[in-house]
Amino acid sequence: MRLLIIGGSDAGIEAGLGARAVDDAIEVSLLVADHYPNYSICGIPYHVSGEVPQARNLAHRDADELKAAGLQLRLGERAVAIDPAAHNVTTASGQRLSYDRLVVATGARPQRPPIAGLEALGPDDGVHELHTMDDTARLIASLEQPGMRSAIVIGAGYIGLEMAEALTARGLLVTVLERFDQVMARSLDAEQAAHLAAELDRNGVAVHCGVTVASITRHDGGGLVVTGKDGKQHSGDLVLVVTGVQPDTELAISAGAHTGAGGALAVDRRMRTNLPDVYAAGDCVHTHHRLLDQPTYIPLGTTAHKQGRVAGENAAGRHRTFAGVLGTQVVKVFDVVAAATGLRDAEAAQAGLSTLTVQATADDHKAYYPGATPIHVRLTGDRRTGRLLGGQLIGRRGAEIAKRVDILATGIHHGITVSEILDLDLAYTPPLGSPWDALQQTARHWLARA
Amino acid sequence: MRLLIIGGSDAGIEAGLGARAVDDAIEVSLLVADHYPNYSICGIPYHVSGEVPQARNLAHRDADELKAAGLQLRLGERAVAIDPAAHNVTTASGQRLSYDRLVVATGARPQRPPIAGLEALGPDDGVHELHTMDDTARLIASLEQPGMRSAIVIGAGYIGLEMAEALTARGLLVTVLERFDQVMARSLDAEQAAHLAAELDRNGVAVHCGVTVASITRHDGGGLVVTGKDGKQHSGDLVLVVTGVQPDTELAISAGAHTGAGGALAVDRRMRTNLPDVYAAGDCVHTHHRLLDQPTYIPLGTTAHKQGRVAGENAAGRHRTFAGVLGTQVVKVFDVVAAATGLRDAEAAQAGLSTLTVQATADDHKAYYPGATPIHVRLTGDRRTGRLLGGQLIGRRGAEIAKRVDILATGIHHGITVSEILDLDLAYTPPLGSPWDALQQTARHWLARA
Repeated sequence: MRLLIIGGSDAGIEAGLGARAVDDAIEVSLLVADHYPNYSICGIPYHVSGEVPQARNLAHRDADELKAAGLQLRLGERAVAIDPAAHNVTTASGQRLSYDRLVVATGARPQRPPIAGLEALGPDDGVHELHTMDDTARLIASLEQPGMRSAIVIGAGYIGLEMAEALTARGLLVTVLERFDQVMARSLDAEQAAHLAAELDRNGVAVHCGVTVASITRHDGGGLVVTGKDGKQHSGDLVLVVTGVQPDTELAISAGAHTGAGGALAVDRRMRTNLPDVYAAGDCVHTHHRLLDQPTYIPLGTTAHKQGRVAGENAAGRHRTFAGVLGTQVVKVFDVVAAATGLRDAEAAQAGLSTLTVQATADDHKAYYPGATPIHVRLTGDRRTGRLLGGQLIGRRGAEIAKRVDILATGIHHGITVSEILDLDLAYTPPLGSPWDALQQTARHWLARA
Repeated sequence: MRLLIIGGSDAGIEAGLGARAVDDAIEVSLLVADHYPNYSICGIPYHVSGEVPQARNLAHRDADELKAAGLQLRLGERAVAIDPAAHNVTTASGQRLSYDRLVVATGARPQRPPIAGLEALGPDDGVHELHTMDDTARLIASLEQPGMRSAIVIGAGYIGLEMAEALTARGLLVTVLERFDQVMARSLDAEQAAHLAAELDRNGVAVHCGVTVASITRHDGGGLVVTGKDGKQHSGDLVLVVTGVQPDTELAISAGAHTGAGGALAVDRRMRTNLPDVYAAGDCVHTHHRLLDQPTYIPLGTTAHKQGRVAGENAAGRHRTFAGVLGTQVVKVFDVVAAATGLRDAEAAQAGLSTLTVQATADDHKAYYPGATPIHVRLTGDRRTGRLLGGQLIGRRGAEIAKRVDILATGIHHGITVSEILDLDLAYTPPLGSPWDALQQTARHWLARA
């Protein structure tokens, strides 16, 4: 059985590993458009910052490991056409590769916001996007130019904020411009986002929210000027445009694949497209939301791994169902960690749910033990059923924020009620917790208000 | 309605707060045998170590807060008899207090192991037990004696290990003697315990396992000698006996209360004893185990809080059911954190379950990001149903061990299978996790072996 996979990032590699784990007689080939298979794209900010000195260390596995796992990598080969009837794929170099099963894992690509002047400017001008390892190399080359003192980051999503930190670490004066009136608007409520903005401010990053960028111009003597629709100008030696991604779907659409939520490829929970023997996974497909029980578009590395695994195992003959996501995510910005899972009020309201959200602040561990720090917790629950719908946490690094949100994600996975949070037998020792964890203390507030 | 509570520690205080939360017209009185209501007994090692300089900081709430919450504290008053028919309690000073509802929260007291010479020796001789604030004051007084250079800790449970750290922090040379052939034998498998023992060794603590203490003698010139049944002698200036606790039940038994698992007071899941209008909670009662679906005796502060709350709310007229425990616990020893939840092989086998336990080691976060440390994970699952039965984690402080075990505890609470661990939508960012968390990587090993 020949399994062909288009894409060598998280979803593609996991599909290959998943298929081989089911049946190691399957021939697995991957078309990898660049020369960086299985690279951790999430790690790019830490390479730019210098914390990960060697780019190759970002690889989850190196070429030898992938080969040993039975994956045949075709590096630098881009697929340009799929013929689902004939079961073959044509590459940019004109090769035609036949398959029994195909997994499309083409990922996403940066959104280009409608900014005057943006199309004409590129890395040589100091204007960058950041999605691939090649983008990364170009950005670092720019940063190594003499006289690089300041940067403007357009977009305050998690990549924008991680890059604000990375560029600050490299000694640049950083300005962040965000069109929404808060940072991380897609993930966090304003109350939580304010704590992140404060941490950026403490570290010398200028954050301007509510700024829609109108134009970028390059001065003749070097230097870039970004002008907002409010007319205000921001100058920098470098501009980074990180305003989100969109699914990379043209190849599959040209072959007749249907699209779903967010314009991403439509797949069922077995990760099958509408095309025969064609599966798809990762940032190019829509995602089953476990709470909404419908497809959404939330491109995340964790999801790409899980979907890839399901696609690969099913392509290999198993019958796996993707369990769905809650949109769980976490970001570290300087010394603060923010995390979220599940639905926020507006999302839940759109789904017809009546929600109550409460906020409480509780220490990560007993205050008497040195080093206790506050965690700001927001819990959103369904007023009617009492079910927990979502949670948001923010606090200092070291406060076990990431794994605390996972407690909520695990509960929501199982349909936990807010009341049941109080029943959870959670671990306690004074240096690491409280007899009633911060989550439980917040749950009690929710119940008192419900 | 008059609610009387015997005991002013975790369970007693929570019972009072729970009752008042239901109905603030209820008169709540607490008989507190000592003068330390609502003290965090779990914090004693950190007061001894000097990390919490003031003993009063160990109070979860101070007297004013308790008063404001509507709890009338009768400090230094010990109950000596309960008359369940007459609905009253007699105190040591001869007062008779009537009640409508009673909560017995008398807690536990140290086990005194059968060691020759132990009965005749006390704090003045440098031989201590450690359960109350008065014990703590006596121990600190001993430590402040001149010439105090070495200590022997008998018992390597979590208090023994925390105290080994505390005494080391005070500059003493510490020896730990444990009758089982590993530390933390009641909570951890030998493989995990070995990592704890190594951390103790790294910090200069001598740990001798498999040593049953036969006798303690005091030299005339000062100094204590502890002799094992193996004949080996260990000398120290101070001996701390911390070999576990037993439920403090005499008062209730004298009044006709029945006992259950571990000789603790028998209660139903509403925390009712067999006596009319008499509830009991905390370390003096047995505990419903959620996985075994039967009572066990696992005295822990978290459980005492939860049971106290249920007892208090039910005494006030609610209909609450105690959800049961998994025995989740965590201990920090120097720079290592060990945590566990659920059942271990032997416990599960005793319950007739066929288990598979696998061990794997995975980094707390992506290895390319600085500071990654290994977490040793053990997962125990039911071979027949695939259900997760238990988990044990050990790793460096900062690796989010405590809240990672809580992910497992939350899953087990809901009957998660090992396979479903892979479906959990857990948070990921390279500085704080992996696309497949350490727990998920271990789950995959389990599935490959099952």
